Amino acid sequence: MNLFPSHPSRRPGKASLAKLAMIAILASLPAMGHSQATSSQNPVAMEFPYQYFPANLPSDATAQFYPSVWTTYASNPGRNPAFPMPANAPRKLRDGVAWSFAGAGALPLNGPPPGGDFKTAAYTFGMPVGVSVVKGIVYVGDDNGYTYAINAQTGKLIWAHYGWNMNMSNPLVVGDRVFVSTGSAYFNYANTMKYLKGQRPTRGPGLNTIYALDRTTGKELWAYHTPGEGMPTPLYKNGFLYEGTGDGHIYKLAADTGTLVWKADIVSFDSMSSLVEGSGYVFAGGTNPNFFYALDENTGKIAWKMTIPDMVATGIGDCTPAYQAGIVVQEVTVSSGDPSNPVANVLLAMDANSGKIIWQKRFPNGPVPPAMKTATPVIVNGVVYEGSPVSGEYYALNLKDGHQLWSLHIGSQIRAGAAIQNGIAYLPYRAGDIAAIRIADGKRVAVKHLGGAFGPSSPVIVGGTLYVSNVYGWVTAVPLKDIYSSTAATTAE
Amino acid sequence: MNLFPSHPSRRPGKASLAKLAMIAILASLPAMGHSQATSSQNPVAMEFPYQYFPANLPSDATAQFYPSVWTTYASNPGRNPAFPMPANAPRKLRDGVAWSFAGAGALPLNGPPPGGDFKTAAYTFGMPVGVSVVKGIVYVGDDNGYTYAINAQTGKLIWAHYGWNMNMSNPLVVGDRVFVSTGSAYFNYANTMKYLKGQRPTRGPGLNTIYALDRTTGKELWAYHTPGEGMPTPLYKNGFLYEGTGDGHIYKLAADTGTLVWKADIVSFDSMSSLVEGSGYVFAGGTNPNFFYALDENTGKIAWKMTIPDMVATGIGDCTPAYQAGIVVQEVTVSSGDPSNPVANVLLAMDANSGKIIWQKRFPNGPVPPAMKTATPVIVNGVVYEGSPVSGEYYALNLKDGHQLWSLHIGSQIRAGAAIQNGIAYLPYRAGDIAAIRIADGKRVAVKHLGGAFGPSSPVIVGGTLYVSNVYGWVTAVPLKDIYSSTAATTAE
Repeated sequence: MNLFPSHPSRRPGKASLAKLAMIAILASLPAMGHSQATSSQNPVAMEFPYQYFPANLPSDATAQFYPSVWTTYASNPGRNPAFPMPANAPRKLRDGVAWSFAGAGALPLNGPPPGGDFKTAAYTFGMPVGVSVVKGIVYVGDDNGYTYAINAQTGKLIWAHYGWNMNMSNPLVVGDRVFVSTGSAYFNYANTMKYLKGQRPTRGPGLNTIYALDRTTGKELWAYHTPGEGMPTPLYKNGFLYEGTGDGHIYKLAADTGTLVWKADIVSFDSMSSLVEGSGYVFAGGTNPNFFYALDENTGKIAWKMTIPDMVATGIGDCTPAYQAGIVVQEVTVSSGDPSNPVANVLLAMDANSGKIIWQKRFPNGPVPPAMKTATPVIVNGVVYEGSPVSGEYYALNLKDGHQLWSLHIGSQIRAGAAIQNGIAYLPYRAGDIAAIRIADGKRVAVKHLGGAFGPSSPVIVGGTLYVSNVYGWVTAVPLKDIYSSTAATTAE
Repeated sequence: MNLFPSHPSRRPGKASLAKLAMIAILASLPAMGHSQATSSQNPVAMEFPYQYFPANLPSDATAQFYPSVWTTYASNPGRNPAFPMPANAPRKLRDGVAWSFAGAGALPLNGPPPGGDFKTAAYTFGMPVGVSVVKGIVYVGDDNGYTYAINAQTGKLIWAHYGWNMNMSNPLVVGDRVFVSTGSAYFNYANTMKYLKGQRPTRGPGLNTIYALDRTTGKELWAYHTPGEGMPTPLYKNGFLYEGTGDGHIYKLAADTGTLVWKADIVSFDSMSSLVEGSGYVFAGGTNPNFFYALDENTGKIAWKMTIPDMVATGIGDCTPAYQAGIVVQEVTVSSGDPSNPVANVLLAMDANSGKIIWQKRFPNGPVPPAMKTATPVIVNGVVYEGSPVSGEYYALNLKDGHQLWSLHIGSQIRAGAAIQNGIAYLPYRAGDIAAIRIADGKRVAVKHLGGAFGPSSPVIVGGTLYVSNVYGWVTAVPLKDIYSSTAATTAE
């Protein structure tokens, strides 16, 4: 059954990237009033919050070559979601697949954002936060309220779940379950008035929910509602979920039932800071007041919290920390005192047990970026890779002492972490490009323009394919070899 | 082409109301994971902001029996959208049609709202504001970002336009154009901080837009962006559009081009107060500060503004005023001083030229209703019909002197205006019911439970059919005779 008899190229399957550019143009046509759809029925998506197309599920034979679990933002505490495939994986998966998937309300990839720019509108559209890829399925949250499950090889929709609020979480997958959380960055009128009266406000109007869904059907298993937003990606560990929210708490839930184990009052809003775990703690940044927190993962007690002078919102509460070898790293934003370049990013490396700052690196002053003011750090083999959305620079720093190995001028706001494999960091940034950066020396060896705009969306590499979502509402699968052909490495070494 | 081979009953066509209850149950099934859909393609709605199904357009022969224009909220300054059909109209239109249409993310009609209640979530879902019906097409905005055009006879989707923000406007239709406006009730962090610093904030994060769309295709003709929300329904008069916004202005645009004629700084947010025109002025209520405004429709100068003591947000800025014979009426909310029943609604009747209060009627004290705290007044033949969401009472008052003709205890929050035809007021209220009230004496002669929950959604009567939208995301067409059979009057007298 083909809903697009006149547009077979809209679902390209193994289309080349050159073809993807064509598809982006085709995609823009219906928005201009030239749709050829002739169904006399309402399409199912207009009717119900839930859709399910089991025919699009991957086979077990294919699913086995993908990651089998996803427990935290970007899959691991170092935030590097890169997964080689073994030599016995199908050639097409090792070579990389190409498709694009547009959520409801997606924007034409080559057009401007509505309103002409994202100054006021950043992060109210599309899929700002990255995908997760488990057992042959790509999962992604959309600000339109949907969570989508997409066949990783074909790009076809398996299910869509509507959650009645923005989904800016990187879906977690454990066993047969997907966990997502929802919420937005806003305040309603009553909570704005609380601010004014010196009362404690709650951030996140409407319904804020952590959902457990069936991995293959999208069926809702349980829903836990919080007073404030649940924008950050939850953290799964040992049967429990941890989540920071807009009501100033960290929640611990039993993952099987959704029942509350404890909630810890940290006062600060957790805006977009997805918890990381390490050394027996869970860590997150918070806004209003601006602090970085370490909580005992068992008791929920605040083990330590720390701040530095001149911190401004919403840097620390929007940065997702990374952890490796007893060190937790977090980017923050400080006021520079220079009116022409009023802010700067600072990368902090803290001792996980004490909160003592081991080193800090201040990046150049610059203009205030719209919306989110920090990027996600990535740690691989004792090196931290971090961007500055303020200055548009990208850095490699020694994890132990902060020694700068190199820096690279990107010149566009960087909010995502890179996916790093075989010596190349694949880094999306706001201009809609993916840069391929040689991590040995920081040389940018290639740039691929995909269109749209990238927020804090860490790309995911599985075999020969890079998967990335954008704030125009698209998930794109790109063969690595189409970004930087000589380094396409699809097989585990 | 039938997308629902196994669920033919989902699109009922001329199903009875009893059958609609069944459909609501079926509709809930996919949300519980039992969808039978087997398409192997992504449905079109998942892909693009715009959809168009020309086969579902009404014929000219049918369209002629419907209103031909819609220039203001609820179609006229009295806010009574009731249109008889002539005796030569098709029998099925005079008898009334039955269908239901669910927007993307609609809730099962007989289930609870997500989270169990609407205390924190009211108005973040569904279609809170009413439909407009022009030339055989029902137009409705959805908080999910879509504007839908639906065949008024069959309930089938004609087009869907995605506007990247909540659409709480009652679409206007003039000539070949539909005008809608978008926005939400929220503040982003930066604007919350402005409040705190005593600076002037803007309400409405993200993209706020007034769109002109082609009436029959949904194609976008122009888009005008405002800094603050555009939740109220615009007003059309003599080739111009007027709109109040969350940046504290009233805008006047040329309807053909979308170019600005003037904007008047009123400071107050226009939240949900849809402008009404009369006596050469445009009128609207505003919040923060709480004032009611009259602007010269040609110059944009504030002719007068008025307030009364103890007014509380967000009563006046959420009430859509009505106008008749030189009198403009507006409901407001005041603090009562009684901690157990802290607020009361007050209906104000003002001289349109001077702003002098001709009379005011204070309704009983009661608890603070969630979200919107006022209802839409309706004026028919010198009588004002108005509900109190605080007390759950419904009133008829003489327009000239405020003399109370009757009151009726509904016992559920009333935010909508009624549609009144042949001596019966059809009034939706929060419990998901439509009451049929005899306006001669205020006797409730019938109640029909439709399910879901009704916000400020004025129903529309055309011929023998009542059209109404709800906050669960559904538009329902109900034969009047199924609400109150002995008064079903489908022919002009």
